[in-house]
Amino acid sequence: MEQINDIQVVPCTSSNYLKPFRVHYSQNGTKKSWDFMRTHDSVSVLIFNTTSHCFVLVKQFRPAVYMCEWERTQPKAPESAEQAAEEKEWAAAAAPETPRGETAATVGGGETPQPPGSVGMTYELCAGLVDKADLSLEEIARQEVLEECGYDVPVAKLRRITSYRSGVGVTGAKQTMFYAEVSDENCVGEGGGEPQEGELIEVVKVPLHEAMTFAYDESIPKTMGVIFSFIWFHNNMSPKYKISTNV
Amino acid sequence: MEQINDIQVVPCTSSNYLKPFRVHYSQNGTKKSWDFMRTHDSVSVLIFNTTSHCFVLVKQFRPAVYMCEWERTQPKAPESAEQAAEEKEWAAAAAPETPRGETAATVGGGETPQPPGSVGMTYELCAGLVDKADLSLEEIARQEVLEECGYDVPVAKLRRITSYRSGVGVTGAKQTMFYAEVSDENCVGEGGGEPQEGELIEVVKVPLHEAMTFAYDESIPKTMGVIFSFIWFHNNMSPKYKISTNV
Repeated sequence: MEQINDIQVVPCTSSNYLKPFRVHYSQNGTKKSWDFMRTHDSVSVLIFNTTSHCFVLVKQFRPAVYMCEWERTQPKAPESAEQAAEEKEWAAAAAPETPRGETAATVGGGETPQPPGSVGMTYELCAGLVDKADLSLEEIARQEVLEECGYDVPVAKLRRITSYRSGVGVTGAKQTMFYAEVSDENCVGEGGGEPQEGELIEVVKVPLHEAMTFAYDESIPKTMGVIFSFIWFHNNMSPKYKISTNV
Repeated sequence: MEQINDIQVVPCTSSNYLKPFRVHYSQNGTKKSWDFMRTHDSVSVLIFNTTSHCFVLVKQFRPAVYMCEWERTQPKAPESAEQAAEEKEWAAAAAPETPRGETAATVGGGETPQPPGSVGMTYELCAGLVDKADLSLEEIARQEVLEECGYDVPVAKLRRITSYRSGVGVTGAKQTMFYAEVSDENCVGEGGGEPQEGELIEVVKVPLHEAMTFAYDESIPKTMGVIFSFIWFHNNMSPKYKISTNV
């Protein structure tokens, strides 16, 4: 059980991770502007273990997901005034003059109950950023499978499923999804990510016969990539693995 | 054909749309921090027109998607120095002291070819933010179908497909996907969004028999929601509509 405590929200005036830019442009002669963020493209990998007939996912605490749920637990003003009150509340929580560590800046404590850490524990495909210019997408995917899940899978065994755009309003980055079949023999380590980079990743197995129930269970926080890839597997691999589950 | 010109990138020190926050917290006793952004939850709707046997999507210019492709066209330094050079180039493009309108701040012009506007034209499900506290998810979905696509569909006809987390690293918001069957008789307007809010949305029909080819055509910029929902339809509605396409 994940224990999350001492939540403090502060404004983020300069971040190594979130770098907002504004683009001014002309679309068919009309001047426009848009705020966006730079981000790297990414790869994700649906891993299927043919020895245990399980999908291999990663599970980690996602502060952004947790904060969404935390916000839902905060007291709400009546409908009409809600948005203004909400803004005020966050502005107060994130006031620049509030020094870290003071009781006044601590949110989620006091009288308002705080959601359990489990609401931020998210199931995802093994994935990583395309931030190494000298590696192909397949090579980056291979590295992530090894680092996060502990399987050593040859690049040639990675099958490209498709690519698409994520966060089209804000980042618009390209995500490419792969499929990798592994066996217990390919398992060369524990996985778990790079602790020195702050990664705390748990490797989770989802048995094939439970996959569709898992995919559509809305009480389990997960990404669309998990749901989509499970269904892709069902449609494309089911003759090979004789799945009889309903979708 | 979308004409995109006069691209200028400037830093975004204050945005009504992107509001970075930093959360400090303690996870199982270890102090951590994470930069994230607040955003609203959202709804999306797979619309199927039973008269024409077409899916109804929206298509719009997405500056964030375009800028990703624009960046790819920029000259690259040799491998090892690439990231540093890239940062420098963007820092220069976004230098605060560069006033808007000066030639020096114009990027994408000059000797470097600029990608066509079409690379930023993205196919998406009809969707909208959950930013009205007094409306249910279904009511918000209904409004979006009307505003963006021109179909008046009763709330009772909206079928919930599932929900999931988006942008788990940055926003973590919850997205809920619905399915709506409409007919030509439900079409009461042109759709196209709210021009006064800057929306310039084109309503696009994808014939059912072309849907799977469309979904997996990586040359068409689209969201994962389009791909996933087309496959969901194939698996769940095919008995009703006798689809014989391969997935």
